[in-house]
Amino acid sequence: MTTPFQSMPAIVLVAPQLGENIGSAARVMLNFGLTDLRLVAPRDGWPNPAADALSAGALDNGVTVQTFPALAEALEDRTHVVATTARARGMQKPVMGPADTTNALRTPGVAGAVLFGGEKSGLSNEDVAVADNILTYPVNPAFSSLNLAQAVGVFSAAWQANAGLPAVFEASNEPPASRADLIRMFEHFETELERAGFFYPPEKTPLMRNNLRNALVRANWSEQEVRTFRGAIKALALGRGAARITRD
Amino acid sequence: MTTPFQSMPAIVLVAPQLGENIGSAARVMLNFGLTDLRLVAPRDGWPNPAADALSAGALDNGVTVQTFPALAEALEDRTHVVATTARARGMQKPVMGPADTTNALRTPGVAGAVLFGGEKSGLSNEDVAVADNILTYPVNPAFSSLNLAQAVGVFSAAWQANAGLPAVFEASNEPPASRADLIRMFEHFETELERAGFFYPPEKTPLMRNNLRNALVRANWSEQEVRTFRGAIKALALGRGAARITRD
Repeated sequence: MTTPFQSMPAIVLVAPQLGENIGSAARVMLNFGLTDLRLVAPRDGWPNPAADALSAGALDNGVTVQTFPALAEALEDRTHVVATTARARGMQKPVMGPADTTNALRTPGVAGAVLFGGEKSGLSNEDVAVADNILTYPVNPAFSSLNLAQAVGVFSAAWQANAGLPAVFEASNEPPASRADLIRMFEHFETELERAGFFYPPEKTPLMRNNLRNALVRANWSEQEVRTFRGAIKALALGRGAARITRD
Repeated sequence: MTTPFQSMPAIVLVAPQLGENIGSAARVMLNFGLTDLRLVAPRDGWPNPAADALSAGALDNGVTVQTFPALAEALEDRTHVVATTARARGMQKPVMGPADTTNALRTPGVAGAVLFGGEKSGLSNEDVAVADNILTYPVNPAFSSLNLAQAVGVFSAAWQANAGLPAVFEASNEPPASRADLIRMFEHFETELERAGFFYPPEKTPLMRNNLRNALVRANWSEQEVRTFRGAIKALALGRGAARITRD
């Protein structure tokens, strides 16, 4: 293949049972940009209306599904195979977490496959034996069995996180307030507090003022937010009767 | 709190609709060691039999659920709040991925909460406004809406991955074969191949032998695997008639 997805791994569900899980797996794959779903001997055949219902459209808009009678056929065009399991198998092959696994699968020229076993008992030892490495998650040993679609989701998210892609949106880059603007805001606030009799006893004024400034300065104010806060100070001052003081 | 889970964040589902998603969220939370689930105004009330069915026992064995009429009440004891959203909000707050978010939540003394909105439209701007930062995933922009329980799953896995915990099991640490054992295995193999007439023409013998050794040496053989392979060589040789050669 010479598509931009050259190194995209196939997700291979071996003997999956519930269409709901197949559909949920397809949905979360497409959420994270994976589109090659392969089913080995799905219990209820294919297509499966329960899968459609849970896929939120992923099966119509991006994820391709192929079915195979046996695992070997699903791996015909694959060169690196990962078996996902939460159980030690006593097998002599590298055990990796999601980050190391996605690194291995991103090696140029590699056509990867990630195997997930069916709901009842996961992958068989025979399925694991053909894999290059084992992928496992740092799960709670007392409650280690993930839902099949969740297991696909955790891998898919790791795959995309490891692409080093930026988040889909950035923080709002509203212009920050200049420090001078901020200090004028502090002074405005303190002037009104002074009028309101807040700074008492007088010898504690510097301490009280600095406590307020230290708290407020941490908020990384934008220009707009400074204007809004000054409006709020003014409104409070007016509400207290300052209106008469300043208007009369 | 002075429990070992002092810094464990609460997972807060705001106006969740489907019990199935609440149960699935509880299951994947417990898979990754999170146990504090809070529901704000769940549409179908609580408890919810559909949640029980999908929780695979997590609701009976580890995850505690509290319900609240409004978000502020759910956050009473929390000091750092994260809002999960796939949509830019034009708000002046840091946008982080899962790794940075879990770092922030692991700061000593922090009692965290991670907010997830309901199935229909996610968190409201009012919900997001009380958060310290936004958590977003590097999703496919053309298909960005995660299932609620999957969104909880991706965060939960990131939380646990970031604990720096080892995988729940290590690669089998069967003793590796010594290099001398491995070379004896190669020699045994080559001796039988020689007898079988494999090395032809004779001047190519070194090249053919090294090609075989280069391939086999990559397999990182254990002692037991070397024994097994030597047994296999022997069996093949016997099958070819070598039995008569060596026994007679």
